[in-house]
Amino acid sequence: MVGSWVNSAEILGSDLPLELSGTGNRRAVLMRALREAIRAGRLPPGTRLPPYRSLAADLGLARNTVADAYAELVAEGWLAARQGSGTRVAERAVPRTPAQRPRTPRRPARPLLDLVQGKPDPSVFPRTAWLASARRALTRAPHDAFGPGDPQGRPELRQALAGYLARVRGVRASPGQIVLCSGAAHGLRLLAEVLGGPWAVEEYGLPFHRTLLAAHGVGTRPLTVDEHGARVAELGRTDRAVLLTPAHQFPTGGPLRPERRAAVVDWARTTGSLVVEDDYDGEFRYDRQPVGAVQGLDPEHVVLVGSVSKSLSTTLRIGWLVLPERLVEPVLAAKGEREQWSSATEQLTLADFIESGAYDRQVRRMRQRHRRRRDQLVAALELRAPQVRVTGISAGLHAVLELPPGTEHSVVRAAAWQGLAVEGLGDYLHPAAAAPRAGGRDERVGGNGQNGQNGRLRRDGLVVGYATPAEHAYPEALEALCRALPPAPGPGPAHAPASVPAAPREPGPAHAPA
Amino acid sequence: MVGSWVNSAEILGSDLPLELSGTGNRRAVLMRALREAIRAGRLPPGTRLPPYRSLAADLGLARNTVADAYAELVAEGWLAARQGSGTRVAERAVPRTPAQRPRTPRRPARPLLDLVQGKPDPSVFPRTAWLASARRALTRAPHDAFGPGDPQGRPELRQALAGYLARVRGVRASPGQIVLCSGAAHGLRLLAEVLGGPWAVEEYGLPFHRTLLAAHGVGTRPLTVDEHGARVAELGRTDRAVLLTPAHQFPTGGPLRPERRAAVVDWARTTGSLVVEDDYDGEFRYDRQPVGAVQGLDPEHVVLVGSVSKSLSTTLRIGWLVLPERLVEPVLAAKGEREQWSSATEQLTLADFIESGAYDRQVRRMRQRHRRRRDQLVAALELRAPQVRVTGISAGLHAVLELPPGTEHSVVRAAAWQGLAVEGLGDYLHPAAAAPRAGGRDERVGGNGQNGQNGRLRRDGLVVGYATPAEHAYPEALEALCRALPPAPGPGPAHAPASVPAAPREPGPAHAPA
Repeated sequence: MVGSWVNSAEILGSDLPLELSGTGNRRAVLMRALREAIRAGRLPPGTRLPPYRSLAADLGLARNTVADAYAELVAEGWLAARQGSGTRVAERAVPRTPAQRPRTPRRPARPLLDLVQGKPDPSVFPRTAWLASARRALTRAPHDAFGPGDPQGRPELRQALAGYLARVRGVRASPGQIVLCSGAAHGLRLLAEVLGGPWAVEEYGLPFHRTLLAAHGVGTRPLTVDEHGARVAELGRTDRAVLLTPAHQFPTGGPLRPERRAAVVDWARTTGSLVVEDDYDGEFRYDRQPVGAVQGLDPEHVVLVGSVSKSLSTTLRIGWLVLPERLVEPVLAAKGEREQWSSATEQLTLADFIESGAYDRQVRRMRQRHRRRRDQLVAALELRAPQVRVTGISAGLHAVLELPPGTEHSVVRAAAWQGLAVEGLGDYLHPAAAAPRAGGRDERVGGNGQNGQNGRLRRDGLVVGYATPAEHAYPEALEALCRALPPAPGPGPAHAPASVPAAPREPGPAHAPA
Repeated sequence: MVGSWVNSAEILGSDLPLELSGTGNRRAVLMRALREAIRAGRLPPGTRLPPYRSLAADLGLARNTVADAYAELVAEGWLAARQGSGTRVAERAVPRTPAQRPRTPRRPARPLLDLVQGKPDPSVFPRTAWLASARRALTRAPHDAFGPGDPQGRPELRQALAGYLARVRGVRASPGQIVLCSGAAHGLRLLAEVLGGPWAVEEYGLPFHRTLLAAHGVGTRPLTVDEHGARVAELGRTDRAVLLTPAHQFPTGGPLRPERRAAVVDWARTTGSLVVEDDYDGEFRYDRQPVGAVQGLDPEHVVLVGSVSKSLSTTLRIGWLVLPERLVEPVLAAKGEREQWSSATEQLTLADFIESGAYDRQVRRMRQRHRRRRDQLVAALELRAPQVRVTGISAGLHAVLELPPGTEHSVVRAAAWQGLAVEGLGDYLHPAAAAPRAGGRDERVGGNGQNGQNGRLRRDGLVVGYATPAEHAYPEALEALCRALPPAPGPGPAHAPASVPAAPREPGPAHAPA
């Protein structure tokens, strides 16, 4: 996965590029880049490095990776760490060792092109309509809206959401069953605290969710995912809950098949467990009617978790839990009896945004835009890489490109070399499901077909977030993607290397026309 | 304290008043009120009661109190609890027992007058100026403001705050040392998680803060508070941190005297502990220049916790921690690496609000308003209750009225009888400091002068939140307050009973002119 994070971090406000290409695990690559920058004088002695956490966030690396790199460079004498003043470039310069890749070519400071999922193009935020709602909401709001609020959330918004979710997602809930929270992650934190563990999760899913649950003492175990979603027959009596993405399995893309929807609800009823339905992009379905939420099947055994992060903006920090009545009180207790978490003025604005029809318009607009993006992706692949199968395209904001076994790693690196950030399917695999593949995270080398427990088929693939790029950058991103894909079997076109040289000797043209 | 929470709760959306007057502890009074409502048919069989938590919040009661009352009434057959459908009035009516106070007079549904501190009149929120800032901020915001944000908070706001806090509070910090959070409570949660316990706290303080710390495993022990603030000489080596309100001790009112400010910083330096400075109302000082924040003395050993809850609105959910650099990373890790918590659009709006000078104007406006309120309070007391000493009036949004030993409880009840909600000083006392006084919380009978360990002087008093009432209601609230105060010693005016009959026989005029 090394190449997937060609990236840079701002150090001391400058836009100093860290050159993160090359072979080896991520820590090794980062250490090389830092040494190189110090040697070349781009990081002069005394320069304070960004905190490891910031650098990790900027580069999309695990914090441990960066912390370890810093620690080793301190041990090597390149850096100095002092209590209270962070990590700095050592004052006594480490002697220059010209053997170590002194002529690494300069690369673009940031990936110019980005197809990493989960980051809808922020330029589509409806500023004008949102401001209009804010003006109406703040003008109309009762005085008490500016006083201590109900930790459950403004009644106006819970009312609006109950209506909207019933109409669009088939959710059955009164406003009293809705608890507002600061995004879906906050909702999961609260559920983890109230329900305890362990939870079953889909073997492919957001690593962030698993980390979050673990941080709250909730262990997870993976359920096999196939083209019909999670195999819920694998659920057991010891699972306290199961976290599912029934509308559109994340990230592989299929909706949970009807028998499984019924089966998982039966399981919850029989065992007294709970289905946690992450309805992260249920509104974005392109070729037929959206699949209703599982919550509608049995509101007493399903919690629906939703937010405006995909449809509107992650920045508003508004999410919700639709809860069985018996869980409302415990969740509120976990939330804190005097704590609202979400801004009441934003809640009122969103309530107006929904009630005025602006939310529907925004979702429609986004759906059209995403569908067009998806169609462009499919067309480009048909033309340029007909050998690559695309799945998970009937809904959502991303697609999965199936790759020949063993090629995921090199394709991600090839994309990085094209200045394109994109993630491999392996990045989303539960560690317990991935375990049979290889040792540590850094050593992962891509899938290789049939392996693992249960004879599961490990897949190589790319997760392509087609909603991410700005409008003008999308064609170029598609172009770079096609160039990075492995050539068709047999005598193929020569333009797209399936892997790139480990230590390129000269700057390659980032976006040369094919 | 029974009378201090004459109040009502909405049951099933109706405005059904619960009549919470009478003697006994809070649970007993609530049980009586519920029985009476059922008996009188105001709660018909089958009616679903609000969840105990909601009722507790509405009535300002501890949740356990309400939960216990429900449980006992279930045991008595008045109520029925069923899994999944909450608590309802039992279908088979409990036989009417006319002996039990059947003729309790109807009281006003809500306290008409409110001098409980901590709730600045929400009608003063500057809607127009806020909307203007929102318009400018959203128009000007870069696209990335609507994408995944920095968990530390928008740089625009941290920059604006660093400048504002330096200018107004003498805080020394770079924007990089500021971490935005969802209000001061969130800030304390994060610090509790990062620092661990135990903490020393002021013996008088917000019970909510102690509860919050305890919920995060941080035990607290009380420091004596006198007219110069907390006696920091009582700090020990085992205290991991001390939570102080140096600008204006909450709620007793004095600023921490200079020697103690220096001493507490020395203590932190020597022991490697931390001072947590709750700067909850540092901007509101009336008679001289505000006392600068202790943080300015030693930014490496003091964390300043602030928010806009007092100056602007608690509803915005924006607070901040100003941290020593070494704590920035740990606090961000506790906050969650992908979680922002505060709305970025609100953060940008607040940044504009500060930079444009609107925040200064709002604080100035509020300061004038509060000062006028305070002067009215002092004048009313001089005229009507010259025997009552007022303290803590040089700053803040509340004052403390000293009461003769042993009268606090009856004065609070007398106020309630006047339709006035106001709290006793005893409500803010740390349980460990209160322990020598009496048994349980419900049995508290008010202070009685010299007692307790260390020969501390226990004080009887009222905490009067003069910023709370709406403009039109303030004179009436003052009037009710004066009527509730104990008469001057010797032959005094006859109009103000120092205590009210335990079971009043007829509805008293709530606001008869004196």
